[in-house]
Amino acid sequence: MNLKRYRKKMEYSYTLGAAPTVELLKRAPEHVIKVILSKRIDKDANVGVIYNICDEWNIPIEVDEKTINRLSDKGNCFVIGVFDKFTKIAQKDSSHIVLVNPSNMGNLGTIIRTCVGFDMNNLVLITPCVDIFNPKVVRASMGAIFNLNFSHYDSFDKYLKDFPNRKIYTLMLKGATEINKLERKKEEKFSLVFGNEATGLDDSFLDIGKSVLIKHNDSIDSLNLPIAVGIAIYAFLN
Amino acid sequence: MNLKRYRKKMEYSYTLGAAPTVELLKRAPEHVIKVILSKRIDKDANVGVIYNICDEWNIPIEVDEKTINRLSDKGNCFVIGVFDKFTKIAQKDSSHIVLVNPSNMGNLGTIIRTCVGFDMNNLVLITPCVDIFNPKVVRASMGAIFNLNFSHYDSFDKYLKDFPNRKIYTLMLKGATEINKLERKKEEKFSLVFGNEATGLDDSFLDIGKSVLIKHNDSIDSLNLPIAVGIAIYAFLN
Repeated sequence: MNLKRYRKKMEYSYTLGAAPTVELLKRAPEHVIKVILSKRIDKDANVGVIYNICDEWNIPIEVDEKTINRLSDKGNCFVIGVFDKFTKIAQKDSSHIVLVNPSNMGNLGTIIRTCVGFDMNNLVLITPCVDIFNPKVVRASMGAIFNLNFSHYDSFDKYLKDFPNRKIYTLMLKGATEINKLERKKEEKFSLVFGNEATGLDDSFLDIGKSVLIKHNDSIDSLNLPIAVGIAIYAFLN
Repeated sequence: MNLKRYRKKMEYSYTLGAAPTVELLKRAPEHVIKVILSKRIDKDANVGVIYNICDEWNIPIEVDEKTINRLSDKGNCFVIGVFDKFTKIAQKDSSHIVLVNPSNMGNLGTIIRTCVGFDMNNLVLITPCVDIFNPKVVRASMGAIFNLNFSHYDSFDKYLKDFPNRKIYTLMLKGATEINKLERKKEEKFSLVFGNEATGLDDSFLDIGKSVLIKHNDSIDSLNLPIAVGIAIYAFLN
Protein backbone atom coordinates (compact mmCIF):
# COMPACT_ATOMS: atom_id res chain seq x y z
CA MET A 1 0.00 0.00 0.00
CA ASN A 2 1.78 3.08 -1.31
CA LEU A 3 0.04 6.03 0.32
CA LYS A 4 -0.50 9.09 -1.84
CA ARG A 5 -1.34 12.65 -0.94
CA TYR A 6 -5.02 12.94 -0.11
CA ARG A 7 -7.59 13.35 -2.84
CA LYS A 8 -11.36 13.36 -2.43
CA LYS A 9 -11.96 10.21 -4.48
CA MET A 10 -9.85 8.03 -2.17
CA GLU A 11 -11.64 5.61 0.13
CA TYR A 12 -9.42 6.49 3.05
CA SER A 13 -8.11 9.67 4.62
CA TYR A 14 -5.49 10.84 7.13
CA THR A 15 -5.21 12.44 10.53
CA LEU A 16 -2.18 14.72 10.43
CA GLY A 17 -0.69 15.23 13.89
CA ALA A 18 -0.90 13.67 17.32
CA ALA A 19 -4.11 15.28 18.65
CA PRO A 20 -6.46 14.19 15.82
CA THR A 21 -4.77 10.77 15.59
CA VAL A 22 -5.35 10.10 19.29
CA GLU A 23 -9.02 11.10 18.89
CA LEU A 24 -9.30 8.78 15.87
CA LEU A 25 -7.84 5.87 17.85
CA LYS A 26 -10.06 6.52 20.88
CA ARG A 27 -13.34 7.09 19.03
CA ALA A 28 -13.12 5.00 15.87
CA PRO A 29 -10.35 2.36 16.25
CA GLU A 30 -12.33 -0.05 14.07
CA HIS A 31 -11.80 2.27 11.08
CA VAL A 32 -8.03 2.69 11.47
CA ILE A 33 -5.89 1.03 8.79
CA LYS A 34 -2.52 1.94 10.26
CA VAL A 35 -0.52 4.57 12.08
CA ILE A 36 2.68 6.10 10.72
CA LEU A 37 5.26 7.62 13.05
CA SER A 38 8.22 9.89 12.44
CA LYS A 39 11.56 9.08 14.06
CA ARG A 40 11.45 12.64 15.38
CA ILE A 41 8.34 12.17 17.53
CA ASP A 42 8.81 12.96 21.23
CA LYS A 43 8.28 10.10 23.61
CA ASP A 44 5.46 11.97 25.31
CA ALA A 45 2.13 10.81 26.72
CA ASN A 46 0.50 10.68 23.28
CA VAL A 47 2.91 8.04 22.03
CA GLY A 48 2.02 5.77 24.95
CA VAL A 49 -1.70 6.15 24.19
CA ILE A 50 -1.10 5.46 20.51
CA TYR A 51 0.91 2.28 21.20
CA ASN A 52 -1.65 1.01 23.74
CA ILE A 53 -4.68 1.42 21.49
CA CYS A 54 -2.86 0.04 18.42
CA ASP A 55 -1.81 -2.98 20.46
CA GLU A 56 -5.33 -3.61 21.74
CA TRP A 57 -6.91 -3.31 18.26
CA ASN A 58 -4.08 -4.95 16.27
CA ILE A 59 -3.43 -1.77 14.31
CA PRO A 60 -0.05 -1.77 12.55
CA ILE A 61 2.43 1.00 13.39
CA GLU A 62 5.13 1.92 10.90
CA VAL A 63 8.04 4.31 11.29
CA ASP A 64 8.27 5.88 7.85
CA GLU A 65 9.80 9.32 7.43
CA LYS A 66 9.28 9.49 3.68
CA THR A 67 5.54 8.87 3.86
CA ILE A 68 5.12 11.39 6.70
CA ASN A 69 6.84 14.06 4.62
CA ARG A 70 4.85 13.21 1.48
CA LEU A 71 1.42 13.26 3.14
CA SER A 72 1.75 16.26 5.44
CA ASP A 73 2.17 19.83 4.29
CA LYS A 74 3.63 21.11 7.55
CA GLY A 75 7.07 20.33 8.95
CA ASN A 76 5.84 19.67 12.49
CA CYS A 77 3.72 16.58 11.75
CA PHE A 78 5.21 13.51 13.45
CA VAL A 79 2.28 11.09 13.42
CA ILE A 80 -0.36 10.24 10.84
CA GLY A 81 -3.38 7.97 11.17
CA VAL A 82 -4.77 6.25 8.05
CA PHE A 83 -8.48 5.51 8.30
CA ASP A 84 -11.32 4.19 6.17
CA LYS A 85 -13.95 6.80 5.43
CA PHE A 86 -17.03 5.88 7.43
CA THR A 87 -20.71 6.76 7.68
CA LYS A 88 -22.53 7.71 10.88
CA ILE A 89 -25.68 9.47 9.72
CA ALA A 90 -27.47 12.28 11.55
CA GLN A 91 -30.08 11.02 14.02
CA LYS A 92 -33.82 11.62 13.78
CA ASP A 93 -34.38 12.30 17.47
CA SER A 94 -31.65 14.94 17.80
CA SER A 95 -31.27 18.61 17.02
CA HIS A 96 -29.19 19.37 13.93
CA ILE A 97 -26.79 21.94 12.63
CA VAL A 98 -27.37 22.33 8.87
CA LEU A 99 -24.73 23.99 6.70
CA VAL A 100 -25.77 24.96 3.19
CA ASN A 101 -22.78 24.84 0.80
CA PRO A 102 -19.93 25.52 3.24
CA SER A 103 -16.81 26.29 1.20
CA ASN A 104 -13.92 26.62 3.64
CA MET A 105 -12.23 23.56 5.14
CA GLY A 106 -10.86 25.30 8.22
CA ASN A 107 -14.29 26.74 8.96
CA LEU A 108 -15.98 23.34 8.66
CA GLY A 109 -13.45 21.77 11.03
CA THR A 110 -13.84 24.57 13.58
CA ILE A 111 -17.64 24.25 13.40
CA ILE A 112 -17.42 20.49 14.00
CA ARG A 113 -15.19 21.07 17.05
CA THR A 114 -17.72 23.57 18.44
CA CYS A 115 -20.77 21.37 17.72
CA VAL A 116 -19.24 18.31 19.37
CA GLY A 117 -18.13 20.32 22.41
CA PHE A 118 -21.71 21.43 23.00
CA ASP A 119 -23.33 17.99 22.40
CA MET A 120 -24.76 19.19 19.07
CA ASN A 121 -23.06 16.35 17.25
CA ASN A 122 -25.50 15.85 14.39
CA LEU A 123 -24.48 17.76 11.29
CA VAL A 124 -26.18 17.97 7.91
CA LEU A 125 -24.34 19.26 4.85
CA ILE A 126 -26.15 20.48 1.76
CA THR A 127 -23.96 19.90 -1.29
CA PRO A 128 -21.99 21.26 -3.08
CA CYS A 129 -19.70 21.67 -0.11
CA VAL A 130 -16.13 20.99 0.95
CA ASP A 131 -15.03 17.41 1.54
CA ILE A 132 -15.58 16.63 5.22
CA PHE A 133 -12.86 13.94 5.14
CA ASN A 134 -10.16 16.24 3.79
CA PRO A 135 -7.27 16.13 6.29
CA LYS A 136 -7.51 19.92 6.66
CA VAL A 137 -11.08 19.58 7.96
CA VAL A 138 -10.09 16.69 10.21
CA ARG A 139 -7.19 18.68 11.66
CA ALA A 140 -9.22 21.87 12.17
CA SER A 141 -11.81 19.75 14.02
CA MET A 142 -8.97 18.57 16.32
CA GLY A 143 -10.37 15.07 15.81
CA ALA A 144 -13.89 16.02 16.96
CA ILE A 145 -15.11 14.66 13.59
CA PHE A 146 -14.79 11.16 15.08
CA ASN A 147 -17.54 12.07 17.55
CA LEU A 148 -19.84 13.40 14.86
CA ASN A 149 -22.89 12.03 13.05
CA PHE A 150 -23.29 13.61 9.62
CA SER A 151 -25.37 13.32 6.47
CA HIS A 152 -25.18 14.87 3.01
CA TYR A 153 -28.17 16.03 0.93
CA ASP A 154 -28.10 17.60 -2.50
CA SER A 155 -31.00 19.94 -1.65
CA PHE A 156 -32.60 21.38 1.45
CA ASP A 157 -36.00 20.05 0.30
CA LYS A 158 -34.72 16.48 0.35
CA TYR A 159 -33.37 17.02 3.86
CA LEU A 160 -36.79 18.30 5.01
CA LYS A 161 -38.50 15.22 3.53
CA ASP A 162 -36.25 12.93 5.53
CA PHE A 163 -36.62 14.96 8.71
CA PRO A 164 -40.19 16.33 8.84
CA ASN A 165 -41.90 17.74 11.92
CA ARG A 166 -39.01 19.62 13.42
CA LYS A 167 -38.54 23.28 14.13
CA ILE A 168 -36.39 24.97 11.49
CA TYR A 169 -34.48 28.15 12.34
CA THR A 170 -32.62 29.90 9.53
CA LEU A 171 -29.79 32.25 10.48
CA MET A 172 -30.02 35.25 8.16
CA LEU A 173 -28.94 38.88 8.03
CA LYS A 174 -32.59 39.58 7.16
CA GLY A 175 -33.78 37.40 10.04
CA ALA A 176 -37.14 38.44 11.51
CA THR A 177 -36.34 37.72 15.17
CA GLU A 178 -33.21 38.60 17.13
CA ILE A 179 -31.74 35.45 18.56
CA ASN A 180 -31.70 36.77 22.13
CA LYS A 181 -35.42 37.56 21.92
CA LEU A 182 -36.49 34.24 20.45
CA GLU A 183 -39.05 32.35 22.48
CA ARG A 184 -39.00 28.60 22.13
CA LYS A 185 -39.64 25.46 24.11
CA LYS A 186 -36.41 24.14 25.58
CA GLU A 187 -37.34 20.51 24.87
CA GLU A 188 -38.11 20.86 21.15
CA LYS A 189 -35.81 19.30 18.57
CA PHE A 190 -34.59 21.93 16.16
CA SER A 191 -32.46 22.43 13.08
CA LEU A 192 -30.27 25.53 12.95
CA VAL A 193 -29.55 26.37 9.31
CA PHE A 194 -26.60 28.47 8.07
CA GLY A 195 -25.65 29.60 4.57
CA ASN A 196 -22.41 29.74 2.67
CA GLU A 197 -19.55 31.99 3.88
CA ALA A 198 -19.78 34.44 0.98
CA THR A 199 -23.50 34.55 0.25
CA GLY A 200 -25.41 33.41 3.36
CA LEU A 201 -28.84 31.89 2.79
CA ASP A 202 -30.82 33.22 -0.16
CA ASP A 203 -34.23 34.84 0.32
CA SER A 204 -36.11 31.60 -0.37
CA PHE A 205 -35.11 30.52 3.13
CA LEU A 206 -37.16 33.40 4.62
CA ASP A 207 -40.24 31.23 4.01
CA ILE A 208 -38.85 28.14 5.70
CA GLY A 209 -39.33 27.88 9.44
CA LYS A 210 -38.39 30.94 11.47
CA SER A 211 -35.66 33.35 10.39
CA VAL A 212 -33.30 34.46 13.12
CA LEU A 213 -30.72 37.22 13.34
CA ILE A 214 -27.57 37.62 15.45
CA LYS A 215 -27.62 41.39 15.63
CA HIS A 216 -24.35 43.24 15.02
CA ASN A 217 -23.57 46.77 13.88
CA ASP A 218 -23.10 47.69 10.23
CA SER A 219 -19.37 48.28 10.42
CA ILE A 220 -18.93 44.61 9.45
CA ASP A 221 -20.76 42.90 6.58
CA SER A 222 -21.36 39.73 8.59
CA LEU A 223 -19.93 37.58 11.32
CA ASN A 224 -17.45 34.88 10.38
CA LEU A 225 -19.44 31.66 9.82
CA PRO A 226 -17.95 29.58 12.69
CA ILE A 227 -18.48 32.53 15.08
CA ALA A 228 -22.14 32.75 14.03
CA VAL A 229 -22.58 29.00 14.55
CA GLY A 230 -20.87 29.15 17.96
CA ILE A 231 -22.99 32.06 19.20
CA ALA A 232 -26.21 30.52 17.86
CA ILE A 233 -25.55 27.19 19.57
CA TYR A 234 -24.73 28.94 22.82
CA ALA A 235 -27.87 31.09 22.59
CA PHE A 236 -30.09 28.06 21.84
CA LEU A 237 -28.70 25.98 24.70
CA ASN A 238 -28.84 28.73 27.33
CA MET B 1 9.28 53.54 -3.59
CA ASN B 2 9.93 49.89 -4.41
CA LEU B 3 7.44 47.91 -2.31
CA LYS B 4 8.70 44.70 -0.76
CA ARG B 5 6.83 41.75 0.67
CA TYR B 6 5.60 42.58 4.16
CA ARG B 7 7.89 42.24 7.15
CA LYS B 8 7.13 43.29 10.70
CA LYS B 9 9.85 45.93 10.90
CA MET B 10 8.43 47.95 8.00
CA GLU B 11 6.64 51.20 8.84
CA TYR B 12 3.80 50.46 6.47
CA SER B 13 1.59 47.49 5.65
CA TYR B 14 -0.87 46.28 3.03
CA THR B 15 -4.53 45.47 2.58
CA LEU B 16 -4.72 42.52 0.18
CA GLY B 17 -8.03 42.43 -1.68
CA ALA B 18 -10.97 44.73 -2.35
CA ALA B 19 -12.95 44.32 0.90
CA PRO B 20 -10.19 45.31 3.35
CA THR B 21 -8.93 48.04 1.00
CA VAL B 22 -12.37 49.65 0.84
CA GLU B 23 -12.58 49.54 4.65
CA LEU B 24 -9.12 51.13 4.87
CA LEU B 25 -10.14 53.94 2.51
CA LYS B 26 -13.43 54.58 4.32
CA ARG B 27 -12.11 54.45 7.89
CA ALA B 28 -8.51 55.66 7.69
CA PRO B 29 -7.96 57.54 4.40
CA GLU B 30 -5.41 59.82 6.10
CA HIS B 31 -3.09 56.82 6.57
CA VAL B 32 -3.21 55.57 2.97
CA ILE B 33 -0.01 56.00 0.96
CA LYS B 34 -1.32 54.62 -2.31
CA VAL B 35 -3.56 52.03 -3.94
CA ILE B 36 -2.32 49.48 -6.45
CA LEU B 37 -4.72 47.91 -8.97
CA SER B 38 -4.42 44.90 -11.21
CA LYS B 39 -5.45 45.16 -14.86
CA ARG B 40 -7.62 42.14 -14.16
CA ILE B 41 -9.89 43.86 -11.62
CA ASP B 42 -13.60 43.84 -12.46
CA LYS B 43 -15.22 47.19 -12.96
CA ASP B 44 -17.63 46.52 -10.09
CA ALA B 45 -18.98 48.78 -7.38
CA ASN B 46 -15.80 48.53 -5.29
CA VAL B 47 -13.69 50.12 -8.01
CA GLY B 48 -16.02 53.12 -8.10
CA VAL B 49 -15.73 53.55 -4.33
CA ILE B 50 -11.95 53.22 -4.48
CA TYR B 51 -11.62 55.87 -7.23
CA ASN B 52 -13.98 58.26 -5.45
CA ILE B 53 -12.20 58.15 -2.09
CA CYS B 54 -8.75 58.29 -3.66
CA ASP B 55 -9.83 61.33 -5.67
CA GLU B 56 -11.23 63.09 -2.60
CA TRP B 57 -8.11 62.44 -0.49
CA ASN B 58 -5.51 62.83 -3.26
CA ILE B 59 -4.36 59.24 -2.88
CA PRO B 60 -2.33 57.99 -5.88
CA ILE B 61 -3.62 54.94 -7.78
CA GLU B 62 -1.20 52.83 -9.78
CA VAL B 63 -1.91 49.93 -12.10
CA ASP B 64 1.03 47.62 -11.44
CA GLU B 65 0.70 43.90 -12.09
CA LYS B 66 4.21 43.03 -10.96
CA THR B 67 3.84 44.62 -7.52
CA ILE B 68 0.42 42.98 -7.01
CA ASN B 69 1.92 39.57 -7.75
CA ARG B 70 4.96 40.17 -5.54
CA LEU B 71 3.02 41.38 -2.47
CA SER B 72 0.08 38.96 -2.49
CA ASP B 73 0.32 35.24 -1.92
CA LYS B 74 -3.01 34.39 -3.57
CA GLY B 75 -3.83 34.60 -7.24
CA ASN B 76 -7.18 36.32 -6.75
CA CYS B 77 -5.90 39.59 -5.29
CA PHE B 78 -6.59 42.47 -7.66
CA VAL B 79 -6.24 45.47 -5.37
CA ILE B 80 -3.79 46.39 -2.63
CA GLY B 81 -3.81 49.34 -0.27
CA VAL B 82 -0.53 50.62 1.16
CA PHE B 83 -0.92 52.33 4.52
CA ASP B 84 1.21 53.81 7.29
CA LYS B 85 1.00 51.86 10.52
CA PHE B 86 -1.00 53.95 12.97
CA THR B 87 -1.80 54.09 16.66
CA LYS B 88 -5.30 54.38 18.14
CA ILE B 89 -4.93 53.27 21.73
CA ALA B 90 -7.56 51.49 23.81
CA GLN B 91 -9.86 53.91 25.65
CA LYS B 92 -10.14 54.23 29.43
CA ASP B 93 -13.91 54.57 29.56
CA SER B 94 -14.64 51.47 27.47
CA SER B 95 -14.80 47.74 28.06
CA HIS B 96 -11.82 45.81 26.69
CA ILE B 97 -11.00 42.47 25.15
CA VAL B 98 -7.53 41.43 26.38
CA LEU B 99 -5.62 38.70 24.52
CA VAL B 100 -2.58 37.26 26.29
CA ASN B 101 0.03 36.08 23.75
CA PRO B 102 -2.23 35.27 20.79
CA SER B 103 -0.18 33.31 18.26
CA ASN B 104 -2.33 32.79 15.18
CA MET B 105 -2.83 35.57 12.65
CA GLY B 106 -6.10 34.28 11.24
CA ASN B 107 -7.51 33.97 14.75
CA LEU B 108 -6.53 37.53 15.67
CA GLY B 109 -8.16 38.88 12.52
CA THR B 110 -11.36 36.92 13.13
CA ILE B 111 -11.47 38.15 16.73
CA ILE B 112 -11.06 41.77 15.59
CA ARG B 113 -13.95 41.33 13.12
CA THR B 114 -16.14 39.94 15.89
CA CYS B 115 -15.18 42.62 18.44
CA VAL B 116 -15.85 45.48 16.04
CA GLY B 117 -19.17 43.97 14.95
CA PHE B 118 -20.37 43.98 18.56
CA ASP B 119 -19.07 47.49 19.43
CA MET B 120 -16.32 46.00 21.59
CA ASN B 121 -13.67 47.81 19.60
CA ASN B 122 -11.03 48.27 22.29
CA LEU B 123 -8.44 45.52 22.20
CA VAL B 124 -5.39 45.00 24.40
CA LEU B 125 -2.59 42.64 23.37
CA ILE B 126 -0.11 41.26 25.88
CA THR B 127 3.18 40.55 24.09
CA PRO B 128 4.75 38.38 22.78
CA CYS B 129 2.00 38.07 20.21
CA VAL B 130 1.48 38.03 16.47
CA ASP B 131 1.93 41.27 14.53
CA ILE B 132 -1.47 42.98 14.31
CA PHE B 133 -0.45 44.78 11.12
CA ASN B 134 0.53 41.63 9.24
CA PRO B 135 -1.58 41.58 6.04
CA LYS B 136 -2.92 38.14 7.06
CA VAL B 137 -4.42 39.66 10.23
CA VAL B 138 -5.77 42.63 8.28
CA ARG B 139 -7.38 40.33 5.70
CA ALA B 140 -8.88 37.98 8.31
CA SER B 141 -10.37 41.04 10.02
CA MET B 142 -12.02 41.94 6.68
CA GLY B 143 -10.77 45.46 7.32
CA ALA B 144 -12.44 45.74 10.75
CA ILE B 145 -8.98 46.57 12.13
CA PHE B 146 -9.48 50.11 10.81
CA ASN B 147 -12.36 50.51 13.28
CA LEU B 148 -10.34 49.24 16.22
CA ASN B 149 -8.51 50.90 19.12
CA PHE B 150 -5.66 48.76 20.37
CA SER B 151 -2.73 48.85 22.80
CA HIS B 152 0.21 46.56 23.50
CA TYR B 153 1.63 45.77 26.95
CA ASP B 154 4.54 43.50 27.76
CA SER B 155 2.86 42.24 30.93
CA PHE B 156 -0.64 41.97 32.33
CA ASP B 157 0.47 43.84 35.48
CA LYS B 158 1.46 46.87 33.44
CA TYR B 159 -1.92 46.81 31.74
CA LEU B 160 -3.66 46.74 35.13
CA LYS B 161 -1.63 49.73 36.33
CA ASP B 162 -2.75 51.78 33.33
CA PHE B 163 -6.37 50.68 33.66
CA PRO B 164 -7.17 50.32 37.38
CA ASN B 165 -10.66 50.15 38.89
CA ARG B 166 -12.32 47.99 36.30
CA LYS B 167 -13.90 44.54 36.55
CA ILE B 168 -11.59 41.82 35.26
CA TYR B 169 -13.02 38.52 33.99
CA THR B 170 -10.60 35.77 33.02
CA LEU B 171 -11.83 33.04 30.67
CA MET B 172 -10.37 29.77 31.93
CA LEU B 173 -11.09 26.05 31.73
CA LYS B 174 -10.77 26.11 35.53
CA GLY B 175 -13.09 29.13 35.76
CA ALA B 176 -15.09 29.34 38.99
CA THR B 177 -18.36 30.62 37.51
CA GLU B 178 -20.17 29.42 34.38
CA ILE B 179 -20.62 32.35 32.04
CA ASN B 180 -24.39 31.88 31.75
CA LYS B 181 -24.72 32.06 35.53
CA LEU B 182 -22.57 35.12 36.04
CA GLU B 183 -24.28 38.01 37.80
CA ARG B 184 -22.98 41.42 36.97
CA LYS B 185 -24.13 45.00 36.56
CA LYS B 186 -24.88 45.74 32.93
CA GLU B 187 -23.40 49.24 33.12
CA GLU B 188 -19.99 48.26 34.53
CA LYS B 189 -16.88 48.60 32.36
CA PHE B 190 -15.12 45.27 32.12
CA SER B 191 -12.08 43.55 30.66
CA LEU B 192 -12.55 40.05 29.25
CA VAL B 193 -9.19 38.26 29.31
CA PHE B 194 -8.26 35.26 27.12
CA GLY B 195 -5.09 33.16 27.00
CA ASN B 196 -2.98 31.79 24.20
CA GLU B 197 -4.45 29.22 21.77
CA ALA B 198 -2.31 26.33 22.99
CA THR B 199 -1.99 27.00 26.71
CA GLY B 200 -4.86 29.25 27.81
CA LEU B 201 -4.27 31.44 30.87
CA ASP B 202 -1.95 30.02 33.51
CA ASP B 203 -3.14 29.47 37.08
CA SER B 204 -1.81 32.84 38.28
CA PHE B 205 -4.82 34.39 36.54
CA LEU B 206 -7.18 32.55 38.92
CA ASP B 207 -6.32 35.22 41.50
CA ILE B 208 -7.02 38.16 39.21
CA GLY B 209 -10.61 39.36 39.06
CA LYS B 210 -13.27 36.71 38.51
CA SER B 211 -12.57 33.49 36.60
CA VAL B 212 -15.27 32.46 34.14
CA LEU B 213 -15.95 29.26 32.24
CA ILE B 214 -17.78 28.54 28.99
CA LYS B 215 -18.90 25.06 29.84
CA HIS B 216 -18.48 22.35 27.21
CA ASN B 217 -18.21 18.58 27.42
CA ASP B 218 -14.89 16.77 27.73
CA SER B 219 -14.88 15.30 24.23
CA ILE B 220 -12.98 18.42 23.15
CA ASP B 221 -9.96 19.87 24.96
CA SER B 222 -11.13 23.44 24.54
CA LEU B 223 -13.07 25.72 22.25
CA ASN B 224 -11.24 27.40 19.40
CA LEU B 225 -10.09 30.84 20.69
CA PRO B 226 -12.17 33.06 18.34
CA ILE B 227 -15.26 30.95 19.15
CA ALA B 228 -14.66 31.44 22.88
CA VAL B 229 -14.27 35.19 22.38
CA GLY B 230 -17.42 35.37 20.26
CA ILE B 231 -19.53 33.45 22.75
CA ALA B 232 -18.17 35.42 25.72
CA ILE B 233 -18.89 38.77 24.08
CA TYR B 234 -22.41 37.64 23.18
CA ALA B 235 -23.02 36.36 26.72
CA PHE B 236 -21.74 39.60 28.28
CA LEU B 237 -23.83 41.85 26.05
CA ASN B 238 -27.08 39.89 26.39
